[in-house]
This record gives sequence, structure tokens and C-alpha cells, in this order.
Amino acid sequence: MNDYEYMKLALKLAESTAGQTAPNPVVGSVVVKDGAIVGFGAHLKAGEAHAEVHALTMAGEKAKGATIYVTLEPCSHYGKTPPCADLIVKSGIKRAVIATGDPNPEVAGRGLEKLRKAGIAVEFGVCQKEADELNRVFFHFMKHRRPYVTLKSATTLDGKTATVAGKSKWITSAEARADAHYYRHTHDAILVGVNTVLADDPSLTARLENGGKNPIRIVLDRRLRTPLEAKIVQDQLAPTWLITTEEASAQKEAELHQLGVKVMRLKELTIRDLLTLLGREGVTSLFVEGGAEVNGSFLVEKAIDQMIIYLAPKVFGGSAAPSAIGGEGIAEVADAPELNIVEVTTVGPDIKIRAVKEGE
Amino acid sequence: MNDYEYMKLALKLAESTAGQTAPNPVVGSVVVKDGAIVGFGAHLKAGEAHAEVHALTMAGEKAKGATIYVTLEPCSHYGKTPPCADLIVKSGIKRAVIATGDPNPEVAGRGLEKLRKAGIAVEFGVCQKEADELNRVFFHFMKHRRPYVTLKSATTLDGKTATVAGKSKWITSAEARADAHYYRHTHDAILVGVNTVLADDPSLTARLENGGKNPIRIVLDRRLRTPLEAKIVQDQLAPTWLITTEEASAQKEAELHQLGVKVMRLKELTIRDLLTLLGREGVTSLFVEGGAEVNGSFLVEKAIDQMIIYLAPKVFGGSAAPSAIGGEGIAEVADAPELNIVEVTTVGPDIKIRAVKEGE
Repeated sequence: MNDYEYMKLALKLAESTAGQTAPNPVVGSVVVKDGAIVGFGAHLKAGEAHAEVHALTMAGEKAKGATIYVTLEPCSHYGKTPPCADLIVKSGIKRAVIATGDPNPEVAGRGLEKLRKAGIAVEFGVCQKEADELNRVFFHFMKHRRPYVTLKSATTLDGKTATVAGKSKWITSAEARADAHYYRHTHDAILVGVNTVLADDPSLTARLENGGKNPIRIVLDRRLRTPLEAKIVQDQLAPTWLITTEEASAQKEAELHQLGVKVMRLKELTIRDLLTLLGREGVTSLFVEGGAEVNGSFLVEKAIDQMIIYLAPKVFGGSAAPSAIGGEGIAEVADAPELNIVEVTTVGPDIKIRAVKEGE
Repeated sequence: MNDYEYMKLALKLAESTAGQTAPNPVVGSVVVKDGAIVGFGAHLKAGEAHAEVHALTMAGEKAKGATIYVTLEPCSHYGKTPPCADLIVKSGIKRAVIATGDPNPEVAGRGLEKLRKAGIAVEFGVCQKEADELNRVFFHFMKHRRPYVTLKSATTLDGKTATVAGKSKWITSAEARADAHYYRHTHDAILVGVNTVLADDPSLTARLENGGKNPIRIVLDRRLRTPLEAKIVQDQLAPTWLITTEEASAQKEAELHQLGVKVMRLKELTIRDLLTLLGREGVTSLFVEGGAEVNGSFLVEKAIDQMIIYLAPKVFGGSAAPSAIGGEGIAEVADAPELNIVEVTTVGPDIKIRAVKEGE
């Protein structure tokens, strides 16, 4: 195996922990000596050991003279754990292969410098693109301090989310609906509008085959119309946050609070202020499963970083049938967000498209 | 090369003539003797020689004792040309490999029988699925006596054909627009509504890099509002047919007729009657590039056999922005046509989806 292959393995380890490390990035590490793997590691949970610590602990004495592969530049500062760069030096590692740099501009390059100063041969940039992609959400959060927004839609081939008679069960297949639950699992939070809560009383949990990590459930609810009997208020399966305004009653807020719901008031319910608020609360990724109006607000504020689109091989037609993104819309073609298609696959009988904002 | 590979070659020859053989099917043929190809052929144009004739002419004396590969069962009756089955027998062919049968139930199997009776070893069904797919349009026409309808749409990822301000230039890329011209080339006729003629004055020709075969241009025009100055009336690049009703003025009809335009009146302008009429006129394939209303009429009459969808990686949003298929639409999910996705590719920055009616 060569550098590229070992790094791919480290990336695989990192990827497997998606959804469990926030607000930290996913990181994988492999230690190799004389052509044999002597240590594996990944960062498993914020506050716990970094990937390098696990890998070097496994390697033990064999780390002396070995090569370490890490998907992200080792830290050089004391955080909740001591600096990994120091540990690598102390372990007797001879060569370090690093995929990408620290996204924090204040410390970027310092970890590499520490290694080089200690006489370790440093190879930087192996699989950099893959490593950057893997931590897209984390890098985005480090840069903007607001969550990375993924908007999901499920429509017919002609872009409808319901028939003219309002029927929508079901458009996409069970396979596609299951696939969408993976995104709930990997996102810090999920967002819907209060109308979705009133219409469907959803639980908004991540129902994967082997369970899943439930996201924080966020509802845009200007006047606190979420019923006290709603599943997301009663079921205690994940935190529920209601984003409201000064219009909402203090009495209802107190009742919801009693039931463990967090109520946050914004002066105006704009997407911009919402994302700033969520950023301050440490929410790094937001999965939007809104109706047409909510989705439309994210669009006009240019707040969509990624779209996951499921297309069922059905056709509803109808000029009055709703589509996934409503609201005021964009008037000029040149003002419409341009995305890059990064994935087109089939899920059961449906098509799945993943598209990301350009230049992200 | 084995049977499968020779048949693939014959299919390739057949495929290359798509768009030039209507109302006949595309057919390819290869003659092989002692492991060497001694003849190629394809049916090039209705009224001219069949594929087997070309291939056997090229083979000449070498056909004796050879194997012939044909993508479609050889004809056994006198049409515009003598029966190919007789020619094959006369040529001294020892073995015939045939992909699929004649779609005309009245003569299906007779060609094979003739060969077998003459002592030729017949292998039937090699690459049958590919051969059936290749002549989907022809087989459909033989069965239903109305054109195979392909509907094209070009939308944003959220299914819009224009912004809320009516802007639509351009949604898809030049590559996608060029790709669509290939379908004009391979279809007998193209159809739009009169509103498209009034709004855009299109020429509706097949503008391929090396020219292209222009389809018959059909306009749904209830009251004959197509202007005498319209490109499709003036340019003489292809036949233009206006489908109208008794509401239209005889005077306007006469003026259009003077300019070479064919005007056809239906009692009611329904898609069903339109397709029956076109079938009688020998139109085997129809490419619909209508606006939302025209497309919607084809949908509710369940007249869409195939959809070609181009999706641009843009998002327009807007509950008032138009989508590709309008009209009344389908009310119940269970009544919506189910299609099979048979192709998903990228064309430049855009996604192209090809979906066909189930059970066709």
C-alpha cells in the first residue's frame, strides 16, 4: 500500500464517525511501520481523545520510526486535550503524511511547523480534496460561525410535492425516505415550519435500521402555535427548540418550557438572524425539511449550501400543484444560485441528486 | 468474435440510421464467413433496399455457407421490395442469427419459418432486448397506429421553467440545448402550442453540428392565430402542419395554404384525436416541446410515452414561477403515470434524465 491508499483508509475511518463528533471535525489516523499497520484511530466524540492519540496508543512502542497518516493537521495548542503535534514528536514518529490544514487561520500551519522543527519529514496535501469535502460542514462553521444548511426536497419528475388535490403520500419510495433519515442522523439539527408540525405532527427523529443520532428539532413558529401535545414536545427523544418572535405569548412559552422545550425569541424571524442565533448555540449543520414557504425563505436569503433532491419517476402535472421551493422566488436568471452537481445516483426507483453551492 | 459481438455490431449499424428510415424500422445486418466479416448492411431509407439486401450484395459469392446476423426478423412478403427471407435462402446462407421478431402479428414468425424450411439453422433472440429498445417507436406504431410521444422539459433543480418574473433565458446549458436538437433530428414531427409560436417565433429545426433532418412542425392552433410572417410559415425548411378546429377562419386557412402550410381541422382539439390523425398521416414519433398547458394536456390524456428531462443546477423558487407540466394535473397519487428511469447522465453542467412509460 502507498501513501494514497493509507490516507484513503484514514479517510474511511474519519467518515465512519460522521454525525458523532460535532462541533469537532471528523479525523482519521493510521500508523504504519515497515509496511504493516500498527495503529488506527479516529476522533469519536468532542471532548474525548483525538484520532492521533488513539492511533499512537494502539501503536505503542512500534510508533518509533513509523509513519503517521492524519486526515487533518494535528493540533498544536492545548484545548480539552494536550497538543497532538507534541505527542507525535514524543512518540518517535519519523514521517507524517497530512491530508489538509487546520481550517482555523490563527493556528493553520503551526502543527506542521512543530513536526518539521522536531525533524519529522512532513508530506502535506495527500487526498486534500477528499479531506476538505469530508469536513465541509466543519470548515464552513469555522469560517462563517453559522450552520451549513442542507435543504432536502422530494418531488415528482415535474417538480411537484403534491397533486392539485393536495395528495402527497407517497411520492418517493421507502428506500429514498430511508436514505433521507441518514441525513437527519449526520446533522446537528433539523428544521421545519410550524405548519408542518400542525399538519403532520412529525417526530423528526433519525429512524435508521440500527437506530441513529436524533438531531435537535427546530421549528420556525412566529406565534408559538406548536401544540403542547405535539410529538416533538412530548416524546423526549431529542431537544426541541422553537424559534419565535415577540408576538408569542409568555404563558405558552412557560408551558412549553415546563415540558422541556427551549423557546428562543428573535426580533424578526429572518433566516439571517436565525442562522446567527444557531451558530452562537453551536449548531454546525442544519437539515431543512421545510414546506415551500420555509424553503423559499432560505433560497431568497441565499442560505442554501447544499441540496439533496429525490425525484420519483412519477408525473403529477397541474399548474396549481405545489413545488418544493415557493415564496417570492428569484426574479432574474442571473440572480439564481448556481450549484454544482456532485452526486447523481438511484435509490430504489428514484433518482437522488446532491448539489452544493459554488465556491464553497 | 461471437454471436453476441456480431449482433452488437449489427445493432450499431441499425442505430446509426435513427431518424432516416421512418416509417420503417432501423435494421442492421452482418454476414460472417470463417470468422471474417464479408458483408455489412443497414436499411437506409423507406422504399429502398432492406439491410439484408445490402449485406448480401456486399458478400456476393461469399454468402454461400456463411452466417447472417439481422437485428429484425427478415420479411417474408412482397412489399416495396421482394422478401428478404427468399433472398437469404437463395444466397446459400447456412445459419441465421436474428435478434427479435416482426412486430406485425400477422407476419411474425413467417420469416423464421421460411428460413428453417429451407434448412437454415436459425438462432433467435440474441440481444433481443436491445433490438426491441432500438425500434421502440416503430413497434409502438405498429401496435397502436399512433405516434410514440416524447415530451421534453428543461427546468431548474426545483422544477421551474421560468422565474416569477417570466425570465427563462437560459436555464440549461448550450450543451443540453444541443443535445435536445438530436431528438428533433430523430423524430418524425415536433409539436408546440400556438402561444410558443406567438411568443418566440421559433424555427423548430434540428440544428446539429453537421446539419440534421428537420421534423414536420406541428402547431396546436385552435383559431389559426399563427402569423403569416412566422418563421415556420415562411422558411420552407420543413413541412408545417397547423392543427385547428371549426372555429378557425377559412380565409386564414387559404392564405396559409398558399404559403405551403397544411391545415387540418379537428372537431375538438383533444390529444386523443390529434394522435389518431397523426397516426393516419404516418407520423410514427412526436417530440413535444410544449409550454405548461400543452404538456399538461398530454399528461392528463396519459399520452406521454417517454420523457427527456434536462435539469440545470440552478434554483429559482417562487410559488408563482411556472413548471414544465401545467394544466389541470392529476389529482390522486395512484393515478399519476409511473415511468421507468432508463438513463441518467450529465450533459455539460446539467443532468439529463430519460424515463419511459411502464410496460411499453
